[in-house]
Amino acid sequence: MRLSHLASTVNPFADVDTVHAHCDLMCGTYDPELARIEAESCYNAIKKYHDSDDELFRQRAILIKEERADLAKEQLWVLWTDYFKPKHLDDHPNLHDLFWRATKQAGDVKKSLDIADAEKLLDLIDEIDEVFKATGGWEGARLRKPTGA
Amino acid sequence: MRLSHLASTVNPFADVDTVHAHCDLMCGTYDPELARIEAESCYNAIKKYHDSDDELFRQRAILIKEERADLAKEQLWVLWTDYFKPKHLDDHPNLHDLFWRATKQAGDVKKSLDIADAEKLLDLIDEIDEVFKATGGWEGARLRKPTGA
Amino acid sequence: MRLSHLASTVNPFADVDTVHAHCDLMCGTYDPELARIEAESCYNAIKKYHDSDDELFRQRAILIKEERADLAKEQLWVLWTDYFKPKHLDDHPNLHDLFWRATKQAGDVKKSLDIADAEKLLDLIDEIDEVFKATGGWEGARLRKPTGA
Amino acid sequence: MRLSHLASTVNPFADVDTVHAHCDLMCGTYDPELARIEAESCYNAIKKYHDSDDELFRQRAILIKEERADLAKEQLWVLWTDYFKPKHLDDHPNLHDLFWRATKQAGDVKKSLDIADAEKLLDLIDEIDEVFKATGGWEGARLRKPTGA
Amino acid sequence: MRLSHLASTVNPFADVDTVHAHCDLMCGTYDPELARIEAESCYNAIKKYHDSDDELFRQRAILIKEERADLAKEQLWVLWTDYFKPKHLDDHPNLHDLFWRATKQAGDVKKSLDIADAEKLLDLIDEIDEVFKATGGWEGARLRKPTGA
Amino acid sequence: MRLSHLASTVNPFADVDTVHAHCDLMCGTYDPELARIEAESCYNAIKKYHDSDDELFRQRAILIKEERADLAKEQLWVLWTDYFKPKHLDDHPNLHDLFWRATKQAGDVKKSLDIADAEKLLDLIDEIDEVFKATGGWEGARLRKPTGA
Repeated sequence: MRLSHLASTVNPFADVDTVHAHCDLMCGTYDPELARIEAESCYNAIKKYHDSDDELFRQRAILIKEERADLAKEQLWVLWTDYFKPKHLDDHPNLHDLFWRATKQAGDVKKSLDIADAEKLLDLIDEIDEVFKATGGWEGARLRKPTGA
Repeated sequence: MRLSHLASTVNPFADVDTVHAHCDLMCGTYDPELARIEAESCYNAIKKYHDSDDELFRQRAILIKEERADLAKEQLWVLWTDYFKPKHLDDHPNLHDLFWRATKQAGDVKKSLDIADAEKLLDLIDEIDEVFKATGGWEGARLRKPTGA
Repeated sequence: MRLSHLASTVNPFADVDTVHAHCDLMCGTYDPELARIEAESCYNAIKKYHDSDDELFRQRAILIKEERADLAKEQLWVLWTDYFKPKHLDDHPNLHDLFWRATKQAGDVKKSLDIADAEKLLDLIDEIDEVFKATGGWEGARLRKPTGA
Repeated sequence: MRLSHLASTVNPFADVDTVHAHCDLMCGTYDPELARIEAESCYNAIKKYHDSDDELFRQRAILIKEERADLAKEQLWVLWTDYFKPKHLDDHPNLHDLFWRATKQAGDVKKSLDIADAEKLLDLIDEIDEVFKATGGWEGARLRKPTGA
Repeated sequence: MRLSHLASTVNPFADVDTVHAHCDLMCGTYDPELARIEAESCYNAIKKYHDSDDELFRQRAILIKEERADLAKEQLWVLWTDYFKPKHLDDHPNLHDLFWRATKQAGDVKKSLDIADAEKLLDLIDEIDEVFKATGGWEGARLRKPTGA
Repeated sequence: MRLSHLASTVNPFADVDTVHAHCDLMCGTYDPELARIEAESCYNAIKKYHDSDDELFRQRAILIKEERADLAKEQLWVLWTDYFKPKHLDDHPNLHDLFWRATKQAGDVKKSLDIADAEKLLDLIDEIDEVFKATGGWEGARLRKPTGA
């Protein structure tokens, strides 16, 4: 198994020896967008909750928020453990703390109906997205940028 | 419950009366990127399968491809049923056929180790992405475009 | 791999060259009953919701309806993509539209407590069941009819 | 089937006397068909495994058999715990043992490529189906018989 | 495949010829603690429900209780079918009935907000734990006792 | 909602004002045993893989190891984000790094058939267990110690 070679098949321009040196996963498709999309659902669920006075609608908003916040958390955990490598910590020493605060914030979104909590989660995901891009991001972990990007 | 009003809270510039007129779901966060990310994983799994001669690695590649192709299928189904509205069929009369071929192609990716099958799935998702954008796409179904877009 | 041969092992009397010509899945066990059973759960959940004035009971009814409507949707999607073949469209040109309306109706059942919505979903599944039977149905996709049939 | 009767078992003002006297679940849609359909998938997976000499196909057959046998087990457990009531044990004293053997057989199907193991699982499910029907079965736990029945 | 040998690799002191004679599963890690932990979550959810008058908090308590009671049920089913062997029935003839009552009690916990229902579930799991230990328990099904034990 | 009060209902002897001060979750049942049980399954799967020369058995060992390593990872993530509080970092400044290494090790167990990898995962979970106990552990997050402890 030639893993350093494998990594380079995904993107011939990636700095295989460094970023992917410790690559130990198979499919390497990571993107903070996955967490962001779930967090946007939480944001929408809270907004719509407050705009409605229908009880069924409101109960479903809470139910869906619970589920979506869980998925956001899950996507963040995967990114933290599977995408980021020890080398990234040198330039981003707050990486662990950032992910801890973001996943805890996803937990806060579950117990809250305050739109500010969803906004804070979105901000933390954007902060993670900055680090993702600074460490190679789309170039290394996606086949190509989103078509609109 | 004022759903047309709710829709507009997500994006004040969306053409609420048309695109969202029949909006019947709560959280409205849709994006073909979700299907594309899973399809890229399938693509990588096939590529890496052929670059490896390690048996464990190859078995895991098949296992993960199976799982990821299922997720791509699921994301496409959700988009088809939940995002698109009867009105969209007027301008895109091949919508149903396009989604049928794309989800069947995700099935083909499961039973194939031919990289061309994964590429064909990616192409079909891109074709769906075009329709998604032509019908409002990110403006209507996301809080905002990806930060890099 | 001799897939047309495989298909015939399930039922030696099936018209393998036609119906199963494009068969690309492994296990070929399909039945609209799967969707119907979940839709019946939705029907019961709504009925029982209205017969109760217990708050816990009512919340659970909504929660279970949400989950079961999702499963009904999922079963319909699988049937659409995996069981039906291009050939079937000739005799059933409304196939795509039928499945689109049925899966959208499953979405409507989620946001409704009107028993008529569950009934409409059951009717659409019965309509699909007619097409399923007309295209070979139990003979091709099951080992045998239900014992009571 | 008397749905209004069923509904009323939840509500203390109803005619609760017979099969549903201890009914403590909400939606009461049970049917051994659910387990049988999964068991048929296992049967097909084993058959097709032996008819193929394609390695990818064979690995997928094992993977899908594993998953489907799990679902058969799950459906049997639900039936045992949720549908059957203490009263049913009087006429069917072997009920527990029957379900134990059937769920263990589903476990055997996972570790076997012998078609006889899948057949034995199907037989045990049919045996359970007999008890299901003898205890009210479709009349009590479904809205109506399958349309072909 | 030498299964009796495999079993002994887990614990060289286990009575392989008897307890594990029919061992048909791969990984053999069983422990009633798994069910107990979920049942404790149900207990906590009910306790906290009554201590709160916040509507969101209460709805989430019900939602989480539903989910956790399901997991407790699932863990009990796995233990019943996969850990216990026919031989164990000789010394514990009430085994089936005990598991039936415990899984039904997990169902009762779903429809109840009475702390006594959660306590009864915990008691039944403890009763199962006694049988688990009497039949070899940790020695046979775990690599070692919990470090604090 | 009086969360500090709620926490104390679980264990009246817990130091509610400190450990639970930031408690933001509902049910608070945490235990590294959950991760350890899954890691033991991985250990067993690797052991049994090497003791067998049956191809089906070996494929299933890999499949189950993949699944169980994922569950171990998940349980570790939950513990990291939901059980531990900022205060715990003072006495255990390596907490984040410990969890990062443990979850990465769970990833390594997926791609390895070396028993040393499973042992290393078990060791890291034991290390986490020490921190768990030092921070209150069973007293704060369980209703009581395991009956055998």
